[in-house]
Amino acid sequence: MMIRPALQEDRSAVWSIIGPVIQAGETYTLAPGMNETEALAYWFGSDKETFVAEIEGVVLGTYFMRPNQAGGGSHVCNCGYMTSALATGRGIGRAMCEHSLGHATSRGYRAMQFNFVVSTNERAVRLWQALGFEIVGRLPGAFDHPSLGYVDALVLFQTLA
Amino acid sequence: MMIRPALQEDRSAVWSIIGPVIQAGETYTLAPGMNETEALAYWFGSDKETFVAEIEGVVLGTYFMRPNQAGGGSHVCNCGYMTSALATGRGIGRAMCEHSLGHATSRGYRAMQFNFVVSTNERAVRLWQALGFEIVGRLPGAFDHPSLGYVDALVLFQTLA
Repeated sequence: MMIRPALQEDRSAVWSIIGPVIQAGETYTLAPGMNETEALAYWFGSDKETFVAEIEGVVLGTYFMRPNQAGGGSHVCNCGYMTSALATGRGIGRAMCEHSLGHATSRGYRAMQFNFVVSTNERAVRLWQALGFEIVGRLPGAFDHPSLGYVDALVLFQTLA
Repeated sequence: MMIRPALQEDRSAVWSIIGPVIQAGETYTLAPGMNETEALAYWFGSDKETFVAEIEGVVLGTYFMRPNQAGGGSHVCNCGYMTSALATGRGIGRAMCEHSLGHATSRGYRAMQFNFVVSTNERAVRLWQALGFEIVGRLPGAFDHPSLGYVDALVLFQTLA
């Protein structure tokens, strides 16, 4: 697996990953009806660094990193990760998160925060905890899950070495 | 006191309130170096409804309301409040927050969340708690205070009736 900065020519591959995740509306607070242009404008936004994970030349995952806040909060970064539905269970999410933790340290960030992890996304919660994140907040009923209704969202945080 | 939607002609009064707060950099995670155009573009952003509080025709406070997240998180709103340094202690923050809670309910929001309340802003924390907010998260060292250094930030949440 190779994780590298995303290039312009990765955009359609990235859309093939993030489109279904956005449309499912089960894990991210993005409008499920976003079209390709809107979704890519978000994922490749000027506030973000965007990466892809590829195996044998095929892009199977992508993540972004950005400052979570401006001003006095800019030493804490935020990331979002998405993996191709074709490639779940292959450790791509874990590898991207590990890469991001290293990259965040190299960028001088002092911590990483996930603002909104849907509590029913248990696999993700367990993975983030295994990678050193702590649950520092719980937002009651903050996510309207398409099939489960109102469920809690979690705030996760990790101070970097 | 009257609280009403902000108009174009309120922009310079709003800047006179938010400019010093932003430049102080002690309570909001906005870049302290934002200029008037940038600050007003933020405060009057198209994602926001913006209000002012006036006493005897003088604008002494302002707040915004927006969805805190898109998609499955859009039933939770977020607000930011600022009061003129000339008018602290006159109940303007409290009145704006009470107004916002009513407005949020009328808009159909099911909850209100403050993502980043600087823990050293004790007066604000007490006020929000008195108005029904609960501390649902603590972000360790997430705010670089200009004089106090790294201090915690709090996540506050209130489910609306």
